[in-house]
This record gives sequence, structure tokens and C-alpha cells, in this order.
Amino acid sequence: MPRYRLTVEYDGGPYQGWQRQANGPSVQQAIEEAIFKFSQESPSLGVAGRTDSGVHATGQVAHADLDRDWEPNRFKEAVNFHLKPQPVVLLDVSYAPEGFDARFSAKGRHYRYRIINRRPPLAIDAGRAWHVKHPLDAEAMHEAAQLLLGTHDFTTFRHARCQAKSPVKTMDRLDVERHGDEVLIYASSRSFLHNQVRSLAGSLVLVGDGRWSAVDLKDALDAKDRTRCGPVAPADGLTLYKVDY
Amino acid sequence: MPRYRLTVEYDGGPYQGWQRQANGPSVQQAIEEAIFKFSQESPSLGVAGRTDSGVHATGQVAHADLDRDWEPNRFKEAVNFHLKPQPVVLLDVSYAPEGFDARFSAKGRHYRYRIINRRPPLAIDAGRAWHVKHPLDAEAMHEAAQLLLGTHDFTTFRHARCQAKSPVKTMDRLDVERHGDEVLIYASSRSFLHNQVRSLAGSLVLVGDGRWSAVDLKDALDAKDRTRCGPVAPADGLTLYKVDY
Repeated sequence: MPRYRLTVEYDGGPYQGWQRQANGPSVQQAIEEAIFKFSQESPSLGVAGRTDSGVHATGQVAHADLDRDWEPNRFKEAVNFHLKPQPVVLLDVSYAPEGFDARFSAKGRHYRYRIINRRPPLAIDAGRAWHVKHPLDAEAMHEAAQLLLGTHDFTTFRHARCQAKSPVKTMDRLDVERHGDEVLIYASSRSFLHNQVRSLAGSLVLVGDGRWSAVDLKDALDAKDRTRCGPVAPADGLTLYKVDY
Repeated sequence: MPRYRLTVEYDGGPYQGWQRQANGPSVQQAIEEAIFKFSQESPSLGVAGRTDSGVHATGQVAHADLDRDWEPNRFKEAVNFHLKPQPVVLLDVSYAPEGFDARFSAKGRHYRYRIINRRPPLAIDAGRAWHVKHPLDAEAMHEAAQLLLGTHDFTTFRHARCQAKSPVKTMDRLDVERHGDEVLIYASSRSFLHNQVRSLAGSLVLVGDGRWSAVDLKDALDAKDRTRCGPVAPADGLTLYKVDY
């Protein structure tokens, strides 16, 4: 009974998120149905990041256990064939190493949050970025972000219904870069709380437009109080781009 | 009667191209209708690049003559308001200088052709790039492309229904760059023939996958024969990103 490791790219726009939902299509369901179509097996996928509705991925990792042993490349081609024309694609399929679990073996998760910072609305990037009209000081955002590096109780930046046992996480990277109209936030951690990156992005935008100082951001963290969080940034801008094992 | 210069971004996917068509929506019509909604005037837009169906723009330039004098920023905001939710946006509006014509005053047009070069289909970039599965040698493409720089008769790389008076054009830039899975072709000229960039991109891909040598590409140019052109690359990958005046 081989376990396969799947690297997945998807446009989160049409989905209720990664995880199977009663109320709409999910990325997990799309892949599981495509696996069934070629193999007549119904594995339940494990996953590194249970991305929310509208969140994208270019490097999501999942695993699937099948009874029959398929050559990994054939598995990939067959699933991609049956996924069409949905915006979900397997970039890579390999035999998982002994003991591999997409969720529990993950040593690092890397997210990118993309902002387009300009007055006119988005045409090309609609659904792929957060449109922020007021000018943002990306350097101030980056400097403030550095205060959040390391191990902290991130209760402030956590969804009210987050199911993680502990709100303590270690932020390894929180960089903010400007490239023309684009402001990119890179966040890396072993694991994240529910809504953590979007909560951080929304709060960093308050720093970027001058409503918060760096000290305000640090005070919000130290308060360990969800009501002190800035507005949660929209899903459109978020992409899970890499998982380390 | 002020003339306005408009800088326009659009996702070409839903449109029959820039120019008004009897058989479907066009970018020109979308903007003209939005201008009418706020001003009750019906100017006919001039444009730098009459992009084909499915071709995108991040720096298209057009002009519009109105009877009433609107403050340019107010013009921009009003048109953008009425364009919603279409993927067409005015990035900038200013008073055009004396004698300005979006088409005839243009001194340079800059296109980018985007290829995603990998085996799996496109999820995130569907409609925004050409999906080429066979490995491409971008360096070989770049080297061959340099043979097309300068002034030539580009009949080979010209649409059969191209209406330009002369097939002689001067190619100022034709660079091919690889960034991971992405292969980008940058083409700059004072003006282009109909389908010229897509014809060049399709022919350069023949060089990239080894079916053509650089000499084959040059021979195709020298033949001045449309039947010697490679396959025309799909519209999805093409973006007009800048016009010089």
C-alpha cells in the first residue's frame, strides 16, 4: 500500500478552501474525485496547509494512500487529466518516504501575501492580490515585522475558531518588500495558527499607512487579545508557496 | 475640447480584442460606454496598439476627445467606477499634449510574451501564459532572436490579413529570459505588424525545443514567406506593457 507525496498548485478562487465542506467545492474533493476516476480508489488526503476559501497555492503538499502501486508519473498524469478544466494541478508526485505525513512531517511552511498598492482598481490581478489604495510605507512595515520574529503567543493574530492546542508559534521570517506597485509579505514558520498570516498582513498594513507604529504592532502582540488585531486581510492575496520536510 | 491621454490595463480574456467588433465585447467599447455613462459624450478612442482577442495590457495608451473639460483625475475615477466589474481599468488620465495621437505619436511599443515551460497544466496562470510542455533552451532562443534585431522585411511573421502598408519594421529588442519555469520574451519596436510578436514567439519556441536552429529562424525571415512562419503562439501569453512617446 504505497503512500504518495503530491505537490499541488491551485487557484483558490472557486473553492471553499482545501478541506472538504458540505456547502461547496473544495480542492481536496477535486483531487480525491480525480484519483477515484482513474484508480477507483477513495483515499482521504492528508495535507500540509488547510488553506481557507480563496487562498491559493503553488507548493501545497498532500499525501494519499492507495492499495494499488501506480508509477508516480503515471499517477500524476492521470490525476491531472481528470482534474481538467479545474484550476488544480499536481506539479509533482513521488513515493513518500517511510513515515511521511504531509501535515505532521512538515518542518516549515512558507506563505506569500501580495498587495497591489495603487489607487486604480485591479484588472489583471483581480482575485490574486489585495488592492490597497492608500500609499504604504513598505520599509516601515518590514521594520515593524521584525519585532514579531521568534517565539511568541500569537493569540492576537489568531482566528476566534482556531483549533490549535497552543497559540505559541515561532516566526522564522516576516519580510516585507516593495516592487513597484506590489508589496509582498513573506511569512515562514514551522506551523501557523488559523488566519495568522492574513491577520498579520492586515495589521502590517495599519503600520504601512501610518495608523500604527511599530510599537503599536508589538503592543498588539503582547496584549494576546484578538480584539487588538488589525483587519484580517482578504484571502485573494495569500499563497502557500512551499513546504519543507 | 480637451484631448485626454489614457493609460489602460486589461485582462484580454473576455474580449474580442481592443477594437469594437460586431460579434462580441471589446475593450474599446467597454471604455467608451463607461465614458458615456459619466459624461453623456461618445468619443471614439484612438489607441496605440489594437491588441487581438485574448491579448492583455498593463500599459496600453489611448486618447479621447471630450467637449466638456473634466479634471483628469475625476475623469479617471468616474470611468473606473462605471467600468466595474469588468477587468478593464484606467491607470492614469492626463491632458494630452498639443498634437498628441495615441497611435501616430507613439515612438515605441513594448510587448512581453510569457511562456510557462513545464509538464503539468497551468492552474494559477491559465489564460495568462502559453503552456509549453517540452523543455525549452531559452539561451538558444535568445541567441537566435538577436539575428532578428534591426530593420527587416517581416513578411514571414505577419498575419495574412495584416493591413500595414509596409512589412518593413525595425526590431529594437528581442530578448528571451528564463526565470524558473517561466520563459519571457521581450519585444520592442516603433510599431509591429499584425500577429508579429505571436508569430515570433511561436517560431522562437521551435528554436527552443531544437526543431529549428538559429540559421533556420534567419532563413525563415529572409524567405519573406508567411508559410515559413512557425505556429502562431496563443494570445494568452501576450501583454502590451508600455508605449513610448
